[in-house]
Amino acid sequence: MRTTMAAVISLGDTDAAGVLFYARLFDFAQRAFEHHCLVRGFPITRFWTDGVLAPVVHVEADYRAPLRLGDVIAIESCVEGIGDSSIRMAYLIRNDAEVLAAEALVVHACISREGKSISVPAPLRLALGG
Amino acid sequence: MRTTMAAVISLGDTDAAGVLFYARLFDFAQRAFEHHCLVRGFPITRFWTDGVLAPVVHVEADYRAPLRLGDVIAIESCVEGIGDSSIRMAYLIRNDAEVLAAEALVVHACISREGKSISVPAPLRLALGG
Amino acid sequence: MRTTMAAVISLGDTDAAGVLFYARLFDFAQRAFEHHCLVRGFPITRFWTDGVLAPVVHVEADYRAPLRLGDVIAIESCVEGIGDSSIRMAYLIRNDAEVLAAEALVVHACISREGKSISVPAPLRLALGG
Amino acid sequence: MRTTMAAVISLGDTDAAGVLFYARLFDFAQRAFEHHCLVRGFPITRFWTDGVLAPVVHVEADYRAPLRLGDVIAIESCVEGIGDSSIRMAYLIRNDAEVLAAEALVVHACISREGKSISVPAPLRLALGG
Repeated sequence: MRTTMAAVISLGDTDAAGVLFYARLFDFAQRAFEHHCLVRGFPITRFWTDGVLAPVVHVEADYRAPLRLGDVIAIESCVEGIGDSSIRMAYLIRNDAEVLAAEALVVHACISREGKSISVPAPLRLALGG
Repeated sequence: MRTTMAAVISLGDTDAAGVLFYARLFDFAQRAFEHHCLVRGFPITRFWTDGVLAPVVHVEADYRAPLRLGDVIAIESCVEGIGDSSIRMAYLIRNDAEVLAAEALVVHACISREGKSISVPAPLRLALGG
Repeated sequence: MRTTMAAVISLGDTDAAGVLFYARLFDFAQRAFEHHCLVRGFPITRFWTDGVLAPVVHVEADYRAPLRLGDVIAIESCVEGIGDSSIRMAYLIRNDAEVLAAEALVVHACISREGKSISVPAPLRLALGG
Repeated sequence: MRTTMAAVISLGDTDAAGVLFYARLFDFAQRAFEHHCLVRGFPITRFWTDGVLAPVVHVEADYRAPLRLGDVIAIESCVEGIGDSSIRMAYLIRNDAEVLAAEALVVHACISREGKSISVPAPLRLALGG
């Protein structure tokens, strides 16, 4: 199941080369992740209240076309896989012309408040559709 | 004339104290400024095409209530004043409960590409309603 | 008592206008604040261990000259005042040519973990030299 | 050839989970890249003056241990490879206890101001030691 959210490249997202500063792609990916969980009934704050942290343990990204100030982007998110204790999220970022400008993979591990690896909780697994 | 845009406090906007990192307030103010200009027919890229830069020369902000992860905020922007060569923008940030959580003032100066002070161009002045 | 730290304007600090994105000035001010406290024997983590939070309640900044990619800056910090339950920090940012490029004022309020206003703790007051 | 720079995890680098917000790792990688080039006689601004842009086209990162507020980190950078028109940079981030907390790979492509792929310029190739 895929979810899409819109965003706009703002001045603070750009750098002196006139394009999206590459690190900011992950700020957008995180916004899309939170949106993805929210629309499935799992607001991001529930990670805290349920006592499950989901730190990022691995990321990858490819930048295919420049994103510029004022560009309206669509960030499509989908669950690429849910392991015993990890969640793999994929993001596709398209610009106004529907060109694929970037894609990213973000892997979250589920850990308890004490830092121990734990299984992806059932409600989260259900929400993410795995 | 006032414009309002919605935004969500995302993980990357927060800090280890669990609230909005104070510097990020201005990232939201900038997004609201760009939205404000856009809905009045003056997209941010037009500053470049028209050869007018609008660097920020002064800011102030008051933080009245904490903003937390997942909070949906409304950023109300209004032109507080347009001088000969400067624009004063005011921002009110309210949380889900409509509590005024922060307010900010951002003053832009109009300069040419060569860095000379110039008058606020007529189309921009018209767009901003001054 | 004044403290100075050096920093470099990196690509991620700049924006499409080719200069420091104005919100990032406060990221540098925060780094200088932490450095200021650290060299006086009050590492930032001690706020947590001592149970005193110091959220920012007010800021001001003036931007006097552009800061560009690669500029080495000196951030001079000083305690402008310590009130009963607040700390006023002033920052002067100079570029390589020792030109004053920006200045900022940041006011922190001292609150307990429960969010109650508290007096600036004696060890912090001593460290900051008030 | 390896270069190491020190940095400190500041409040603005952290998130509500109390650790480095994962996207900020690349802000540190970029600082290390600029430092790496600078100490080899190729300041970042020379990319502009030489007419070669080096946008990031691919990144990867692994997060192995949490980095927290106040942690002093060492970022070791090395050129993993120089292709005809790309540069692969590797970064190892260690915490105060010399534990490997994160590692990152960042691939830059060399393009002209007109956006055409170009060979890595000889002075840059020489500086990077390839």
